[in-house]
Amino acid sequence: MSRNNFDFSIPVLGDAKISSPIKMSKVKGDSFAAYVNDNEYVLFDINTHMGESGIELHSSEVLQVAGPREMIYFNPAHVHVAITTCGGLCPGLNNVIRALVRCFWYSYGVRRISGIQFGYRGLMPESSYAPVPLDPDVVDDIQMKGGSIFGAARGSGDRVSDIVDSLERMNVNILIAVGGDGTLRGADEIGDEIKKRGLKIGVIGIPKTIDNDLSFIQRSFGFDTAVSMAVQVVRGAHAEAHDSINGIGLVKVMGRESGYIAAHTALAMSDVNFCLIPEDPFDLHGKNGLLTHLKKRILSRNHAVILIAEGAGQHLVDELDEKDASGNKRFVDIGVFLRDTIIKYFKEENVETNMKYIDPSYIIRSAPANPNDSIYCSRLGAHAVHAAMGGKTQTLISLVNNKFVHIPIRVAVSARNMVNTEGSLWRDVLENTRQPVLMRNQ
Amino acid sequence: MSRNNFDFSIPVLGDAKISSPIKMSKVKGDSFAAYVNDNEYVLFDINTHMGESGIELHSSEVLQVAGPREMIYFNPAHVHVAITTCGGLCPGLNNVIRALVRCFWYSYGVRRISGIQFGYRGLMPESSYAPVPLDPDVVDDIQMKGGSIFGAARGSGDRVSDIVDSLERMNVNILIAVGGDGTLRGADEIGDEIKKRGLKIGVIGIPKTIDNDLSFIQRSFGFDTAVSMAVQVVRGAHAEAHDSINGIGLVKVMGRESGYIAAHTALAMSDVNFCLIPEDPFDLHGKNGLLTHLKKRILSRNHAVILIAEGAGQHLVDELDEKDASGNKRFVDIGVFLRDTIIKYFKEENVETNMKYIDPSYIIRSAPANPNDSIYCSRLGAHAVHAAMGGKTQTLISLVNNKFVHIPIRVAVSARNMVNTEGSLWRDVLENTRQPVLMRNQ
Amino acid sequence: MSRNNFDFSIPVLGDAKISSPIKMSKVKGDSFAAYVNDNEYVLFDINTHMGESGIELHSSEVLQVAGPREMIYFNPAHVHVAITTCGGLCPGLNNVIRALVRCFWYSYGVRRISGIQFGYRGLMPESSYAPVPLDPDVVDDIQMKGGSIFGAARGSGDRVSDIVDSLERMNVNILIAVGGDGTLRGADEIGDEIKKRGLKIGVIGIPKTIDNDLSFIQRSFGFDTAVSMAVQVVRGAHAEAHDSINGIGLVKVMGRESGYIAAHTALAMSDVNFCLIPEDPFDLHGKNGLLTHLKKRILSRNHAVILIAEGAGQHLVDELDEKDASGNKRFVDIGVFLRDTIIKYFKEENVETNMKYIDPSYIIRSAPANPNDSIYCSRLGAHAVHAAMGGKTQTLISLVNNKFVHIPIRVAVSARNMVNTEGSLWRDVLENTRQPVLMRNQ
Amino acid sequence: MSRNNFDFSIPVLGDAKISSPIKMSKVKGDSFAAYVNDNEYVLFDINTHMGESGIELHSSEVLQVAGPREMIYFNPAHVHVAITTCGGLCPGLNNVIRALVRCFWYSYGVRRISGIQFGYRGLMPESSYAPVPLDPDVVDDIQMKGGSIFGAARGSGDRVSDIVDSLERMNVNILIAVGGDGTLRGADEIGDEIKKRGLKIGVIGIPKTIDNDLSFIQRSFGFDTAVSMAVQVVRGAHAEAHDSINGIGLVKVMGRESGYIAAHTALAMSDVNFCLIPEDPFDLHGKNGLLTHLKKRILSRNHAVILIAEGAGQHLVDELDEKDASGNKRFVDIGVFLRDTIIKYFKEENVETNMKYIDPSYIIRSAPANPNDSIYCSRLGAHAVHAAMGGKTQTLISLVNNKFVHIPIRVAVSARNMVNTEGSLWRDVLENTRQPVLMRNQ
Repeated sequence: MSRNNFDFSIPVLGDAKISSPIKMSKVKGDSFAAYVNDNEYVLFDINTHMGESGIELHSSEVLQVAGPREMIYFNPAHVHVAITTCGGLCPGLNNVIRALVRCFWYSYGVRRISGIQFGYRGLMPESSYAPVPLDPDVVDDIQMKGGSIFGAARGSGDRVSDIVDSLERMNVNILIAVGGDGTLRGADEIGDEIKKRGLKIGVIGIPKTIDNDLSFIQRSFGFDTAVSMAVQVVRGAHAEAHDSINGIGLVKVMGRESGYIAAHTALAMSDVNFCLIPEDPFDLHGKNGLLTHLKKRILSRNHAVILIAEGAGQHLVDELDEKDASGNKRFVDIGVFLRDTIIKYFKEENVETNMKYIDPSYIIRSAPANPNDSIYCSRLGAHAVHAAMGGKTQTLISLVNNKFVHIPIRVAVSARNMVNTEGSLWRDVLENTRQPVLMRNQ
Repeated sequence: MSRNNFDFSIPVLGDAKISSPIKMSKVKGDSFAAYVNDNEYVLFDINTHMGESGIELHSSEVLQVAGPREMIYFNPAHVHVAITTCGGLCPGLNNVIRALVRCFWYSYGVRRISGIQFGYRGLMPESSYAPVPLDPDVVDDIQMKGGSIFGAARGSGDRVSDIVDSLERMNVNILIAVGGDGTLRGADEIGDEIKKRGLKIGVIGIPKTIDNDLSFIQRSFGFDTAVSMAVQVVRGAHAEAHDSINGIGLVKVMGRESGYIAAHTALAMSDVNFCLIPEDPFDLHGKNGLLTHLKKRILSRNHAVILIAEGAGQHLVDELDEKDASGNKRFVDIGVFLRDTIIKYFKEENVETNMKYIDPSYIIRSAPANPNDSIYCSRLGAHAVHAAMGGKTQTLISLVNNKFVHIPIRVAVSARNMVNTEGSLWRDVLENTRQPVLMRNQ
Repeated sequence: MSRNNFDFSIPVLGDAKISSPIKMSKVKGDSFAAYVNDNEYVLFDINTHMGESGIELHSSEVLQVAGPREMIYFNPAHVHVAITTCGGLCPGLNNVIRALVRCFWYSYGVRRISGIQFGYRGLMPESSYAPVPLDPDVVDDIQMKGGSIFGAARGSGDRVSDIVDSLERMNVNILIAVGGDGTLRGADEIGDEIKKRGLKIGVIGIPKTIDNDLSFIQRSFGFDTAVSMAVQVVRGAHAEAHDSINGIGLVKVMGRESGYIAAHTALAMSDVNFCLIPEDPFDLHGKNGLLTHLKKRILSRNHAVILIAEGAGQHLVDELDEKDASGNKRFVDIGVFLRDTIIKYFKEENVETNMKYIDPSYIIRSAPANPNDSIYCSRLGAHAVHAAMGGKTQTLISLVNNKFVHIPIRVAVSARNMVNTEGSLWRDVLENTRQPVLMRNQ
Repeated sequence: MSRNNFDFSIPVLGDAKISSPIKMSKVKGDSFAAYVNDNEYVLFDINTHMGESGIELHSSEVLQVAGPREMIYFNPAHVHVAITTCGGLCPGLNNVIRALVRCFWYSYGVRRISGIQFGYRGLMPESSYAPVPLDPDVVDDIQMKGGSIFGAARGSGDRVSDIVDSLERMNVNILIAVGGDGTLRGADEIGDEIKKRGLKIGVIGIPKTIDNDLSFIQRSFGFDTAVSMAVQVVRGAHAEAHDSINGIGLVKVMGRESGYIAAHTALAMSDVNFCLIPEDPFDLHGKNGLLTHLKKRILSRNHAVILIAEGAGQHLVDELDEKDASGNKRFVDIGVFLRDTIIKYFKEENVETNMKYIDPSYIIRSAPANPNDSIYCSRLGAHAVHAAMGGKTQTLISLVNNKFVHIPIRVAVSARNMVNTEGSLWRDVLENTRQPVLMRNQ
């Protein structure tokens, strides 16, 4: 039953020959905080069953445990670290930055840390955004603010050669890239280019995806905050729907490929009657379509709340695109589309309704991290520093099966994390919303 | 200097001849809570100056102090109270309902209290929404939820005759109408019709306007909560603007006629660079137009936050309407209009910007009341009950110069409360945002 | 009926002969923000009644309106401002500091602003705490934190001569003192000493009293935040009481002389069954004592919540003191005393109870200001700057009848603001808690 | 390397022969939510290392996966469910109750659900607290309140025979016990007694421990909320400490045996300088004692924050107990003890300090669950219902390695979950607080 198609071995820049300035214990049982060694792993797929010969694992892939090593690769006195935050805002960016700076500074004694402004764009030769020198004073209390102190931006991740030129020119030894799918792909290519040039620059990724859609990552930072904010918004939508005549609250949340935010939000309060995610396509019309079910609910209960992930119902929009005169593929906002479709439908059905549409995206992603995410970010950051100082490269820090581990970036970006519609999370959502299991005809 | 054009005398149903079941003191100085008598007033216009003959009042209008009377008009054992909440949601509706029910029930012993569903619509002969019997158990903890437990809706306030028919049929003695301008106008007309028919039904209004735009009302309930929510949203817009390349955060808040929410929000955090309100028209283009000032700010500071009340810049939209082919007046969303205008402008100016537009209206108005509003609502409700039991009618409860007073509804709806652009609030906003005082050409 | 015993005239350092750098309008009606002139006042006592000859004012005292003047006293280029925060923490201190710095800096162009550490102690000759240079960057975002960035402390306010020596030595022209009763008394004495020495140093007070117990001040900053926090704590106490067998939640809040926090908190949620404040002494034992009423409630409803201001029931403690063997006056914590007394009482009465005692003082006073207080602080600060630049001295900024006004410090500290047990606030509390009006055995 | 000393096999009442009313899929790949079968497991100890022969597991123990079964044991139409919440309050109790009721009611069609008041005490023959009938209406919105709607209490868990008598008398078929260590022990004994009597009553536990100190449970419900609240309190303590002269903020949080709350709280904000937990004993005096390190910090940084779990430093208190004259073991509050010790120490050392001691226990445990805990509780509840309907007994629902699983109660209460001082969590805390690794002499 073994699958075993992922190569989880961790790339390194070379042998770690320098004693870590962090004083820890090498033995177990002295109740002294201990180093982690490279031969500590956790099992990746922990599902098993009892077969004829006892326990049968479904796979024997293992992931290297993250944490401080006794021997490190870089001399802290010589190291120049660059940190960059890419893509859109996400709660916790400042917490990650702060954790990185504090761990490099206090635990290892690194004194040259630069914040690259606006993602990879700050590394472009034509960039007018100078690197920001970072130290514990600069990052003091920044975790109270949403956003990223040196800005975040998309783009330029494909200009690999320019980026490595800049890293060389700046004498950067460690690049910490905080970002999503695209950013991490870029980081991996940067790592390839570095290797090609024979440079000794470590590239460590910290996965940032408010959608929680990266594989091999139990949960991305900012996700808990995002869900908390979304829950509050859905509460409001429920009040709006409940307290108006045949009110319909429609909330669109993030989730282009994966409906995690929507699914978790639906579980928090039971206010949601229809939770729509990309992984579970639905029909609008027909006996088993959303509109039919919605009408039933409105006629019997007089209000309804719909929560939709931005990537849900993309097939409906594709359909729409086919009918488009100019023949151009255009992006259709599913929230607005659904809002208009529902209003039109009930008008035709001659049922008075009150539609309340809410799109809280910016409010959610710009929030400061809540305590849960703050803790997570501070641990993610520290583990990234340990990986970097230990000479790991093209590696990201992840939480899998509740353990901090190393994952090769190449593997992490090779697949999407999606809600398994046959699994426990989605099952619990369906029980909570009591929506039809598949809203599709035939 | 006397103006004296308002008639603040309070209509009554008749003489109050029944001893109040609330036991209070009639004398001062015994440290026992005291009744209020009908001859207690507060001055309305408290501004003065020193003239030749000493202090000179600008007006001698006075407002009757609200509160429990020693003698009441209605026999609590006979009274049937109807409560209705009209218009859109507003934080605190449930708190007001709860305060009304508790005060009628516990303080006076009234046992018949009905919640009219969906505003005046629940009083229509064709309505299928039955009145909801209310008691302290029903309203227990409802203040933790936004919205109104028996729903709120616009409309039907003009069907005065139908409404009074319903009140008669239901044997209602007291109607408490919670709503805005239109609702209160309706309530006053209901009162006129009641008088015409020679009925003894008291009509008491509780002003509800999240925009805070009713005259003779220092501050409407829900306003403080609305501002608190708006402040949080602006914080997010600031993070979005600050942490992207030439980011522009644009937030639209409520305020059709009056910019109070916008003005107060701008004062809370100093994140707002341009606060745009209906009372202070602005030009878009030209040397002293918004766009010119915005460009200056973007080029020098790389980010900007604009907060606009929904009624601001209506002249710009009117202009737009003139150009409209069909000749029909249509409603243009100023937020969307400004967003698109700004994007287009900077594209033409060849300046990269990142626009983040947020319209949090439903999120704001559906929030549960914060403690400040909770306190206010509980006091508003109690004072409304005292007024009603005392036989007042066509009267609303208001806070003026920090005192709870009675205002004839007729007077209250005769004028709008608007931000005085020459006054202290707007001056403080201008100092905080450091925006140009008048963004108009010539 | 005139009382007229307060002298509200505002001391000045001299004639204001310099044109303000703030450009405002001198005329009304141009919709341009306007200066305030020294002859604008508001009536202090706005209560009136209808006498034989019409409206009769109860007093004709008036308060000068605060705000920017056309002519100012100090040349902004020469001014050195010192700001100090005295006493215990209070939500909003950082907001006030920030508002002061921003208004001095941006509106007037003042460039020398020093934060005096730890109240007057930072002005002592032996102090090792150097003044902190302040500018808009230093105070950016400090409002997100509770506390005061340059610390707050009690004491040394009586060492007037030392303080004025320091002010002279530092060439300070304006001292802004943020603090309570004691601090303000100190500030007034400093003003007297300055006058005696013939110096031109303005002393402006900003009243800080979380208890809201200063006279002539409608509401002190931080008070709204304090009540909000207390409401949350009482919610918890209610859950604890309600969900245990005969649970008694006892919460002690601030309020040495005045029960404002307790009274407002009791109004927010109706969770409080007994609200005990210094202004309304109560008996413990006997037919009409607290314990008897509490037992009745526990036996009938199985839970109770008591909210006590720290200064309430002081007579009970005094009693206790008389019984004290050593004859020394000692401070008894009324919360702990009441907790122990209640436990002992029910043990003797053989009634199982579960006592949950909460003393949240530090949690409350260290909180960051909520939006309502943030707005208030930013306006208080701006008005203090205008007063100072205009040459006012020995004056504090206050909100009275909802207007920002000047009050001579001397007058403000001459009386305490206390809850009027015969007035509207306390009446509403009694109705809400439904506690006996006077819990005393006459 | 196998340990294999736990028997994780799940007791059942008998064969499950009734088709579940929940319609799910039996096959994989149809994207339809699927049943879980009894042969699905997850590995317990997922740590591995690479040995000579490849991956070597440290143990082969497995845990049965929780979730809905195709065949169930109880006929929903006949079932009477009793739910009881034991011990002290904990955020999320109402969420769990609500999830249980909703899942029993909506998913299985169970119509008899009783809430047992005040834990096992409501099952005592002498109890005057009648069971509360539960349905979805009763539990609507209860999650917005802290506490437990039918109360929680300690005690009577040892009166097993009385409890089983009551269950028989009430015709209860399923008992859901929500509680900690003692409650679960009681539940297991109740299960034994049921078996002895040959009854068919299922006993399912839901672990409740705000301290997170139960073994085999990755994280207990309410823990995340507790940490969030503690973080807010520590922020306040930091402000108090930072903004007074040599301020020391001392916060005591829950954690009798395990310092999880303290450890996580310390990771959230980096405000904590000394985090003291039961698992890591410390000396007070001497070269490496807490007081010496504290003094160093105060002299160099002028403020400090100490976070202590209530069970920390018990050896210090034991010491104290040895010196106790009467020879009785008494409970000493470590927070108060440490507060007094520190004050005394600095007085002797002649260093002015300002001690701010905060004990927020009731405030923390009475809070409503945050969204994260709400989601968790709703899933815990649903899984408990599935286990109960499937005929499992003496079993609790747990999250292990991020999967919902069944654990025999007997095993779960056989050990404590404690912070591993050599593990990754504590290591991260030490790096964050930068406190000495072991504060012990020699």
